This record gives sequence, structure tokens and C-alpha cells, in this order.
Amino acid sequence: MPTYTPPVADTRFVLDHVLGLERYANLPGFEAATPDMVEAILDQGGRFCADVIFPLNQSGDAEGCTRHADHSVTTPTGFKAAYQQLAEGGWIGLAAPEAYGGQGLPHVVATAFEEYLISAGVAFAMYPGLSQGAMAAISAVGSDEQKSAYLPKMVAGTWTGTMNLTEPHCGTDLGLIKTRAVPNDDGTFAITGTKIFISAGEHDLAENIIHLVLAKLPGAPEGSKGISLFVVPKFLVDAEGRLGARNGVACGSIEEKMGIHANSTCVMNYDGATGYLIGEENKGLAAMFIMMNAARLGVGLQGLGIGEVAYQNAVAYAKDRRQGRALTGPAEPDKPADTLFVHPDVRRMLMEAKATLEGARALMLWGALQNDLSHHAASEEDRVAADELLGLLTPVIKGHLTDLGYQIATQAQQVFGGHGYIREYGMEQYVRDARIAMIYEGTNGVQAMDLVGRKLPRHGGKAAMALFALVAADIAEARDGPQAELAGQLEKAVGQLQAGAMWLMQNGMKDPNNAGAAAYPFMTMMGIVAIGWMWLKIARAAQAQLDADEGDRAFLEAKLVTARFYAERILPDAGALRRKLEGGAEAIMALPVEAF
Amino acid sequence: MPTYTPPVADTRFVLDHVLGLERYANLPGFEAATPDMVEAILDQGGRFCADVIFPLNQSGDAEGCTRHADHSVTTPTGFKAAYQQLAEGGWIGLAAPEAYGGQGLPHVVATAFEEYLISAGVAFAMYPGLSQGAMAAISAVGSDEQKSAYLPKMVAGTWTGTMNLTEPHCGTDLGLIKTRAVPNDDGTFAITGTKIFISAGEHDLAENIIHLVLAKLPGAPEGSKGISLFVVPKFLVDAEGRLGARNGVACGSIEEKMGIHANSTCVMNYDGATGYLIGEENKGLAAMFIMMNAARLGVGLQGLGIGEVAYQNAVAYAKDRRQGRALTGPAEPDKPADTLFVHPDVRRMLMEAKATLEGARALMLWGALQNDLSHHAASEEDRVAADELLGLLTPVIKGHLTDLGYQIATQAQQVFGGHGYIREYGMEQYVRDARIAMIYEGTNGVQAMDLVGRKLPRHGGKAAMALFALVAADIAEARDGPQAELAGQLEKAVGQLQAGAMWLMQNGMKDPNNAGAAAYPFMTMMGIVAIGWMWLKIARAAQAQLDADEGDRAFLEAKLVTARFYAERILPDAGALRRKLEGGAEAIMALPVEAF
Repeated sequence: MPTYTPPVADTRFVLDHVLGLERYANLPGFEAATPDMVEAILDQGGRFCADVIFPLNQSGDAEGCTRHADHSVTTPTGFKAAYQQLAEGGWIGLAAPEAYGGQGLPHVVATAFEEYLISAGVAFAMYPGLSQGAMAAISAVGSDEQKSAYLPKMVAGTWTGTMNLTEPHCGTDLGLIKTRAVPNDDGTFAITGTKIFISAGEHDLAENIIHLVLAKLPGAPEGSKGISLFVVPKFLVDAEGRLGARNGVACGSIEEKMGIHANSTCVMNYDGATGYLIGEENKGLAAMFIMMNAARLGVGLQGLGIGEVAYQNAVAYAKDRRQGRALTGPAEPDKPADTLFVHPDVRRMLMEAKATLEGARALMLWGALQNDLSHHAASEEDRVAADELLGLLTPVIKGHLTDLGYQIATQAQQVFGGHGYIREYGMEQYVRDARIAMIYEGTNGVQAMDLVGRKLPRHGGKAAMALFALVAADIAEARDGPQAELAGQLEKAVGQLQAGAMWLMQNGMKDPNNAGAAAYPFMTMMGIVAIGWMWLKIARAAQAQLDADEGDRAFLEAKLVTARFYAERILPDAGALRRKLEGGAEAIMALPVEAF
Repeated sequence: MPTYTPPVADTRFVLDHVLGLERYANLPGFEAATPDMVEAILDQGGRFCADVIFPLNQSGDAEGCTRHADHSVTTPTGFKAAYQQLAEGGWIGLAAPEAYGGQGLPHVVATAFEEYLISAGVAFAMYPGLSQGAMAAISAVGSDEQKSAYLPKMVAGTWTGTMNLTEPHCGTDLGLIKTRAVPNDDGTFAITGTKIFISAGEHDLAENIIHLVLAKLPGAPEGSKGISLFVVPKFLVDAEGRLGARNGVACGSIEEKMGIHANSTCVMNYDGATGYLIGEENKGLAAMFIMMNAARLGVGLQGLGIGEVAYQNAVAYAKDRRQGRALTGPAEPDKPADTLFVHPDVRRMLMEAKATLEGARALMLWGALQNDLSHHAASEEDRVAADELLGLLTPVIKGHLTDLGYQIATQAQQVFGGHGYIREYGMEQYVRDARIAMIYEGTNGVQAMDLVGRKLPRHGGKAAMALFALVAADIAEARDGPQAELAGQLEKAVGQLQAGAMWLMQNGMKDPNNAGAAAYPFMTMMGIVAIGWMWLKIARAAQAQLDADEGDRAFLEAKLVTARFYAERILPDAGALRRKLEGGAEAIMALPVEAF
């Protein structure tokens, strides 16, 4: 019953006009991303997602995954065939190096496709999604042998990957993990322990599953300095890449969850499983963070992708459902009632979603572009700058975009009234599916702490200052043009954010609890401002096209209206958040635990 | 696995010290509410909810309701026995007149108990809850015969009631209903049509079900002026009150919903069922609104009740779960990690819930007291004033408290990290169950429109001015005392609210879409201010007790800290909401439908 159309025109507008992808065409890594190629990827990729993946989303939720007595797991009907098509179409390796069989496209293009894949079915998208994280870690810290043993198969989708961090007693605090890695005589390790919440931990989609597992070596230092990373394949692989014996790792159970039922979230039992050290001993956490940073951006993308499909369905329903009359008099007097679209409060919800999603899409693709530039920009200075900007914004993209995705899914459900609560209409699934993105890969509270505790103060606040300078430059350029009002409103919000940063600098040192208490409002403010910055860019790009009499006029004019909506209806929160932040930690920390 | 303890001490503090229940002891209807009686009701009622109802909440969600081939419906295991205990304990008729077998207690006491019942199991609480609405309508517009035929059985819980409004093509816009009532020769009517989303529509808890059904008489005026209300019992009742033939109404199916699985939400098919007109012909909507207003307060209470139990579980988890270290250094160095309580961002979430819930509880009970005063205050003027205040705040209590209930349930789930997403821990059920309260009995957007379109301008804004005067009086009294700062912060928020009301008066007339576009921010602002007002009352009551060296010092001091938190962390939103509201309708209404 739900519907989904990949927003290709909006993606292309962002790539071509907001980010100006063609400006980077001469950089290595961007060669393959010719305009024709990008168009083909988005069109065909979008169609694949809408036609092949999307029809499985509701049925996959209803059916869920099944674990059998032999510990094997079956994914919902249709997933295996769809996964095969995904793999054969080369969609998993869009951004992977050609050396490993990938398409060698920039991340910014792959990210655009992945948004569509998530909208079409987030639970499905997580199977290849987890592989991306595992591939990132192997690429970063694996030996050449490990890279060539695993990457080509994973790029091709013949094998998938997982991330094994969490244990029953520890999630955020990985220093507490108990899984042990005991050296064998042949240089391998015997891995023993229990990991929980392992997405795509066991399934029937691929021939092999490459688990990346955090474990402790005997005598390793206490806490997070004593964690190493291991590769533990489901089936052992010989030197020629042939599958051998079944390894000592098995799915103990599938978690019963609120949503993403079609993804098998497993308890994984490691019982002396053969593992291979990847990266250096006791440096596992750093390697894991490579995976985590990629994964965090991917989770932020889930907020966008689920929000988008929920929004599209709310729009479709509001066009179709007739209830009540326009406050200004019947809009369609010959019909028994007007459509929901005449009601300002319904439009408020839809405009909030539209303004949020289109701005978030620009931010997401801007972030993916920084990822590309961090590898391929012409100078080391530019590469470092891009990397640090992305590092600063990664917790914001993860934290704020997933908060927004859940809010949008909830409001889209609200547009449906009572029908939104009924499974058949599909809206409640979006809410359930969107909820997990605020939790996994580090809860949004952990993201906020990463932002204010690590990313913001890093190198004396260099990245934040660079960001503020970029925003200020755009504001300055817009100040005397048709976007002057928007620029002024953004400037005000930036002022609130900078005041918040200043307060943090002054008060976070005095009492670190002040930083902790301010973290969440600061992250949200930064998200609001970052998306507001994107809206200034979008509005200027739209205006430039309008002035040049290019492009789709209605599309471009809608951008200007939506930018205005964002400034009027969303930017004002920055002021309230600053006041909250400046409340500090006192009232938050004052009560004894017994008072709760 | 989840836990629940009725917050009796907090309820009693509100009743005794914030609302000063004893001041009303001489009014009719309050006689039965002696301090001893109230204490007994809260203690025993709370224990009953925690011991008998709460253990069924998770199992009821997992099991759901079952419809059989003969159209009968079985509720989850244990519900029938629990319902019998509820009925036999006299809990259904707490506020019903003694003439009909009730306890004759004021609504404010019954509301306190109903909060506990909802916390213990909202899906269960809806069975007697729907009876309350039906009883309210029969009491208000039924003939004496109808009252004595139905009320005693419903008060006793032997029979239950339902509300049948919604049809597949109409919910909010009841003017569109198609269910027909054709007069029979004996003065009864043959009711034919389909009603959907009928909570407690069919079940096995009671001997009979009294359906209140909106339908149209032949030749009735078009739209909402042509709707009549009918009583349609599941089993016909003879003059002596004995059950006769099965009536022509049956459950067509049970809706598959996001939550409240243990409540049977039915499609009800009326096939020439015998109905009795209740109230006047074509005046059914007015009668239904009596039911609706009671029901809306009951739904607001669901926001509070579900928020409370979710919060309590988050607190329990935060006390138990050890993860990471305090930012100021290990709090318990001998343990492997500190509890979640050391983390300011976890405390932020818990304090938001605490401040919201305790303030909302005071507002809810204040509202219930206005209900009592609207019937029993000494003068007609006082009765009208109470009625109008309650009328003004009813959409706010329904809309804002259910928004808050969902937010609190979501944040309580967040405190659990990954475990919050797993069914076993029970937190995701609170989110799913809380979600419906924002939708039914008029979506929260409809509440907002009721507030700005009807309640606010009614009688030239008399009720709003009365409310502002009450708040201003409390602020004035507090201005020079120890709550001066809080009073000042509240005054500022009230100023934002009044400016919003002024903007609405000036701009809503010019273009009614301005009123529609401003409705939601206005409702939220009013909710924030109303709860802020309660916090001023709470803080003053706590201070008075502290000054008099009475009561539980730690409890009272926690009130002062929590009031401060509310002022610092929640009141600031009023300013942002005013700015949003003043954005008006232009950007919201500007886009053509095709631009979405």
C-alpha cells in the first residue's frame, strides 16, 4: 500500500547546483563520476530500489527472520533474490576501488544511491550496509593479504561483513568487554565470548560472513587500551579463497525488536572460533572507530531515508484523503469535502518534513563530499581540512538527522490520523524502523558528547572555526542579494551557536558536567544551523538558476519558499536551545539519586 | 521485567498542598473525599493497579485479542479476572453518583486513581475508560428511563460502553457519516452501517456492551447538523433489565495496530441493529461532544500515565546499569564502572521527564478539580468559570500532554540504549502504546484548532483572560518571595503566550489560515505555560512546607530543584514558539500541491 519514488531531481539539484560536483571533476576518484554516469546511477539505482527492494519492505517486517535449530537464519521471502540482484548490479561496490572490483565512484554518488536503498527498505539496506563498515576497517588497517582475501568478495557481495562490539554488560563502555582471544600455535587466535545486537550477524544472503570482532588478548591492559580487533569468518577461507570448515561462531538467538524486523539482529556466540588479528595488538578500538565513523554517517542517512519515504506517503495521503473544508471556504465545493492539503496544520507538518529533508539531503551529500575530498583533494591541507570538517559534523549528522528522521516519521504518521496507527498503511513501521537509528552506533547522547568533548575542542577548535568561516562567507556573499533576509536569519542562529560554543569553552573547563549538560542542546543547535546553512546554499543556487532562466521554475521557486519556511519555523529553536544550554549543569546534577 | 510503583506521595502532595483539596470539603460532591478516604483510595487503588493490572501489561501486548469465527472476541489471558476484581472493588464507579451505585467521590480523586490504572496497563484501562465516556453521555442527554436502565450496570462494570463515531471515509469530519437509522414502528430505530477504530468494541469482560452510535435519520439535514445519537446494546435489554436477544451488531475484524494490542479495536458492523435515540434528533454531535470532552481529558491522562511508568523504568535502569565514568572522575572507583546516573546527558533526559510529569500531574488534577467545581462550586458564576477554564485547557491537556507522553516514553527508551529497542525490556511497548494518544479523540492538530478556533475566542476571550489573571495573581504573590526568580521566568513565558494570543486576534481575522498555521505552536506554548504555572504553585507549596518545617524535606527540596530545571530547560521554548507562530501562514500555504 505505501509508495516510494526516489527523489532523483532533488539529488541532482544538490549535486550539480548546490555542491557543484563538476568543480571536482579533475580530482582523482572523481573521474568516473561524469554527469552521464551520475545520471545513469541515480536513475537506474533509484528504479532498482523502488521496483525490487521497496515491495519487500512491509512483507519483510511482517515475516521477520527465522532462526533454525541448526543456528542458521533465513531472511524474509524475496530478500535473497533481491540481494543477488543488488550484488550483481554492482551496487554494493559503487564507491569501492576498481582494484577490488568496485566502480571507483566518489562517496557522494554512492551516498545518494544509499539514501534510496534505505528509503526502499532500511532492514534490507543494513545487510550491505554492515559490509561497508567492515570493508572500511579492513581497508584501513588490514594487511595487503587480508585486503585481497576479503575485499573482492565483499565488494561483489558474495560475502558480507559485520561489526561485533557490544556485549550484554557493555555497549558504550567498550573497555569492559570480556570476549577473549587466546593465541593458537599457528598465529591465529581462539575467540571466545558473547556478542549481542549484531546486525546481519547470520543470514542466508551470502556464501560467507566476515565478522569483525573486538576481543582482549591475555594480559592486555585494562579498559579500552587493551582491545584488539579480529577477523572471524563464518567459514574458514584457504589461501586460494575457497571456503573450508565452519568456524566456531553461531547465532544464539535473534533479538525480538521494536522494528527492523527483516534484519537479523543476533546474539553471536564465539566458542573458540578461529580469528585473525587485524591491525595492531591492543589498537582495536582505533580500528573500530574507522568503521564506526563510516557507520555513523550511514545511520544518519537512515534518518534521511526513512524520513523521506514517510513524508512521501503522508503527501500522497493528504492529496487523497478528503476531510473538512478549507478555513477560507470550500476549495472544491463539488466534492463532499476538501483534501487534507487545505488545512494549514497538515501543511505545517508536511512543510516541516520537506524543509528538514531537503536540507538534510544537502548536508548528507556535503558530508559525503568531504569524505571524498579528505582522500582526493589536491593539497594535504585541503584533505586535512575536509577530514576535520567531516569529523566535526559526523556526530551532528548521526545524532540530529536520526532525531529528525524519527520526528518526521512520527509526524507523517500523524497526517494519516487513525489510519497511521494501523499496520496495513505502513506508517507505523517507519516510526518503529526509524527509532533504532537514534540508538545504535553510539546513542545520540554519545554523539553529543563526542561533539562537545572531542570534536569541538580538537586542535583548539580549528574545525569549528573553519566551519563558522565557511558559513560566514556564504552569509557575506548573500547579504546584499535576494537572499539577504535568509542570510540575516541564519546569521542570528549562527550567533546563538557561537555563543553556545563560547559558553562551553568558558564553563566546560570549570566543571566538565557543564559540557555534558550542554552537549545535547549544542548538538541540536549545530544541526539546525548546519541545515540552515545548506538552505542558504540551496536558495542561492535556485536563485541563480532562476535568474539565468534555467531549470524547472516551479521546482526552484518551491526551494525559495521552503527556505523561507525553514528560517521562520525551524531556525528560531536555536535561541531557545542556547538559553537551555546556558542553564548549565547545576539543576541537572543537584538531586540525589534517591530523589528520582 | 518492567517495574511500577504508584506515585502516591506525589499525588497526595498535589491534592493536599498544591490544590488544597480540604478547602472544598464543604461543597456538595466533596463530602465523601475525607483525607482518610482519599488516602485509602490512593493506597489501595495504587496497590491494586501495581499488583493485579501491571503484571498483565507485557503479556497482554504479546498475546493481543483474538476474534473467533462467531465474531466474539477474547481478551488476553488474565484480563477477565482482573476486570472482575476492578469491578467488584468499585473502582469503575469512583466518581459515579451513589444513586447509581457509585462512590460519589469527586473527579479529582477518581482521576488520581485512573492515572495509576493507565500506568499499570493502558490497553486494560481503556475497557472501563470507554465506559466512562458512554456513561457521561447517557448521564447528560439520556432520559431517566435510559439512565436507570444503563447506568447502574455500567457503574458496576457488569456492562461496558463504547463510542462509535469514525467510519472508513471519515474521522474528524463527522458530517460525512453514512450510518443510517431508520425508524421502526415501535419507536426504536434500525441502525445500519460500518464503524471503525471502535475501542473495546467487542470483548469477553462484561455481560453486555452498550454502544453509543452516531447515525443519520432519513431526511436529516446534510453535514454535522443531521447527526443523531443512538444507544445500541449488544444484547437487547427488557424492561426488567434482563438480557434478551443478540442485537444485529458484530465485530467484523480486529485492527492490527502499532500498539495497545490488548485492547480490541474493532470494525463494528451494524446490520439493522435495534437502536434507541438518546437526546434529541439531529443533536447527536453535541451529545457526542460531552463524551468527547470527558474522553479527551482521559486521553491526556494517558500521556501522563504512560510517561510516568516509562520514566520509572528509565530511572531503575539508570540506577542499575554501569557504563563509563563520571566526567569529574570515578564516582565508585571500586566498581568496574559508574552508574548511568553520573552522566549529565542521562540526567537531562530523566529530569525532563520528572519535571514534565510532576507538572503535568498537577495540571491534570487541577483540570479534574475544575470539572468538579463546574458542577459543585457554591455560585453559578464559579461553576461557569470552572467550566470555561476547563473547556479552554481541555485541548491543551489532551494535545500537549499526549505529545509529552510520547516524548517521555521515547526518551525513557533512549536511556536503555540498545536494550530499549528489545521487546523484553518493555520500553518499546510504552512508545507504541503512547503513540495512539496523539491521534484518537481528535488528533492533536484538531485539538490545536479547537483551542484557537473555538475555545480561545469564545465569549470574547473571557476564559483566556481569566486564566491569565489567575497566573498573574500567583506571579504577583511570588514576586518578592523565595520563588521570585521562577515567577519572573514564568512571567516572561506568559508574556510570549499573550503576545501570541494578540497576534492571533489581529491576524487570524485577516486570514483564517493564519490561525490554522499558528494553532499548534500556540497550543504547545499554552501547555508549557500551564505546566510552568503549576510549577510555581508546586514550588510555593513546597517552600511553605519547608518554612513550616513540615513534610519530607528531601521530597520538598527536590521540588524546588525540579521547578528550577523546568524554568531553565523547558520554559525557553515559549520564545521560539512565539517566533514560529508569528511566521504566519504565508510560507505554509504558498506552495502548490504539486510541489510536495
